[in-house]
Amino acid sequence: MTLLAELATPCLLVDLDRLETNIASMAGDARLKGVALRPHAKTHKSAQIARLQLDAGAAGLTLATVSEAEMFVGQGFTDIFIAYPLWVDAPKADRLRALLDTCTLAVGVDSAEGARALAAGLDADDRQRLTVLVEVDSGHHRTGVPPEEAGLLAEQATHAGLDVHGVFTFPGHSYSPGARQQVADQEAEALAAAAAALEDRGLRCPVRSGGSTPTAHSVGPGTMTEMRPGVYVFGDAQQLELGTIGPDRIALTCLATVVSHAGGNTVLDSGSKALGADRAPWASGYGRLLDHPDARISSLSEHHAVVTWPADAPRPEVGSRVRVVPNHVCNAVNLADTLVICRDGEVRERWPVTARGANT
Amino acid sequence: MTLLAELATPCLLVDLDRLETNIASMAGDARLKGVALRPHAKTHKSAQIARLQLDAGAAGLTLATVSEAEMFVGQGFTDIFIAYPLWVDAPKADRLRALLDTCTLAVGVDSAEGARALAAGLDADDRQRLTVLVEVDSGHHRTGVPPEEAGLLAEQATHAGLDVHGVFTFPGHSYSPGARQQVADQEAEALAAAAAALEDRGLRCPVRSGGSTPTAHSVGPGTMTEMRPGVYVFGDAQQLELGTIGPDRIALTCLATVVSHAGGNTVLDSGSKALGADRAPWASGYGRLLDHPDARISSLSEHHAVVTWPADAPRPEVGSRVRVVPNHVCNAVNLADTLVICRDGEVRERWPVTARGANT
Repeated sequence: MTLLAELATPCLLVDLDRLETNIASMAGDARLKGVALRPHAKTHKSAQIARLQLDAGAAGLTLATVSEAEMFVGQGFTDIFIAYPLWVDAPKADRLRALLDTCTLAVGVDSAEGARALAAGLDADDRQRLTVLVEVDSGHHRTGVPPEEAGLLAEQATHAGLDVHGVFTFPGHSYSPGARQQVADQEAEALAAAAAALEDRGLRCPVRSGGSTPTAHSVGPGTMTEMRPGVYVFGDAQQLELGTIGPDRIALTCLATVVSHAGGNTVLDSGSKALGADRAPWASGYGRLLDHPDARISSLSEHHAVVTWPADAPRPEVGSRVRVVPNHVCNAVNLADTLVICRDGEVRERWPVTARGANT
Repeated sequence: MTLLAELATPCLLVDLDRLETNIASMAGDARLKGVALRPHAKTHKSAQIARLQLDAGAAGLTLATVSEAEMFVGQGFTDIFIAYPLWVDAPKADRLRALLDTCTLAVGVDSAEGARALAAGLDADDRQRLTVLVEVDSGHHRTGVPPEEAGLLAEQATHAGLDVHGVFTFPGHSYSPGARQQVADQEAEALAAAAAALEDRGLRCPVRSGGSTPTAHSVGPGTMTEMRPGVYVFGDAQQLELGTIGPDRIALTCLATVVSHAGGNTVLDSGSKALGADRAPWASGYGRLLDHPDARISSLSEHHAVVTWPADAPRPEVGSRVRVVPNHVCNAVNLADTLVICRDGEVRERWPVTARGANT
């Protein structure tokens, strides 16, 4: 048995008890609300974790790219929504057709041009096998049409030969302190308005899909048919600082070694090539230390994380190890080939990050 | 032959002409200065590019981690400096011993504890085969001892049985607008003071190693014996904005597709999982567009880059492709499995990112 102390650092540790708790909690919450859970697997990119989510009741997986879908289909998953306004050229159309032969597939559109390109790459049979959802902007202002324009786009997509089943949104502006409830309300309003816009044009709208980890617990019953949180499986420093979770829900950390005390610094070997370089404007640093809540990563380079401590805090010795909570766990996981699965402080298994790098 | 238009996006393109120009230019500059060039291969992690650097006259490779060294030694490279204050526990000592059997190896130390741990993991023969350099802080204030303390640390390391050959520094504070010449001067002073501190204690200091891409051209003759720039092979948006290079030296771009015009945005599929999330406080955005110098990436998420344009600028259509210059090319490369090598606008080869993810 490998001991934690023998692992080469930096590496990603998953606390299996906490992972299971997070998966069960979100699944239970969705069940109580009567909302289908379609977790976003870009967070973990792991077949094993996706299997745990389905076993706990998830209806299927959300993914971000065609290559993620190819990896998960290769692992036997059969119900996938690529929640992205894909631009489908001839090679991508070939890949979508291959996916349609092996899974139930939905994709997003947010423009008439995108819908026409998608339809042009598929024959009539393929178009009937593919579910299309119109992306709606609920206030994040990234992709997606305004809710009141969803009907027109759905009509254009239908006219192009696509089979529109409804609407989806990503309320990414929930990633801001104190915004959660307001954003969940905007999300609900946007989905309702978009669904009405489809129905006004005589189009059905059986799917209203929303959800992000910050808003998931604020989703009201009846406001959506499915939700797609991702980060909840692991948690991260962003979720801690947004108040979405407490430290006892952090299921993934980066094990790091203190390599230097030069100049009074505490420098860890977990740099941006292990943690990712994410830092939201409101974040207190480049990551947190799970066992030192007052410490902050004040600067980050590829192989160095400089930790700032309160003036009188005891600091870990050179050579000692600490557990770092990445700011944005999705990017940290995409940097790792393997997740080290632990229970009771012992290494139990290693799970491959099946879809690491599958970002096209 | 694969055409650029057939590539799945996002993907990393390398312009081979520019790569060769950058490699030759830095090699020539080092030769003129009489300084050995030991390029930092963490930037490209590519055996093919390292081979081009050696063929152009580089003395050996700089690397950041033991696992990078293992990957490059596995590809036949035999002269390696791990420019990092390694913490060497028993498993890492085993790995260093294996490297010493197959290459000429140098490593950094910046603490007496680190030096003692390194020495304790090796037997007397191994310690004589390993070159040790003392890391000195030239003003970046990350790792490294103050120059005047380098003599004491070199003495402690020697006392522990290590074979100290000199000093090194990384002048990372050169990554700030207008700082280049001043930082190059500080670097030269720090290396001179550190070398004097060793000699004051009767220790030789044949190696004085410095250099970063921003300071490389400001290195004065005689100020160091070798330099270790990395980013110069590709260039990136940080180097553009620091004024280190012009756009005609950008040898690596991320090919991206415009996927959405929603809400007046121009959204690309090159998100932080392709570009990395780096953004220095002085950076104008999350990356640049090579063919649209006035455009900026104003926000970045995992699979979305939102581009901001001057008010009257024509914008690329949905479905069209653009070339994005990542802010920090080292992190972008570490996200890719393959570099697509182009010449005259055509795909010529694909080179693996040999040491991608080799960060322990």
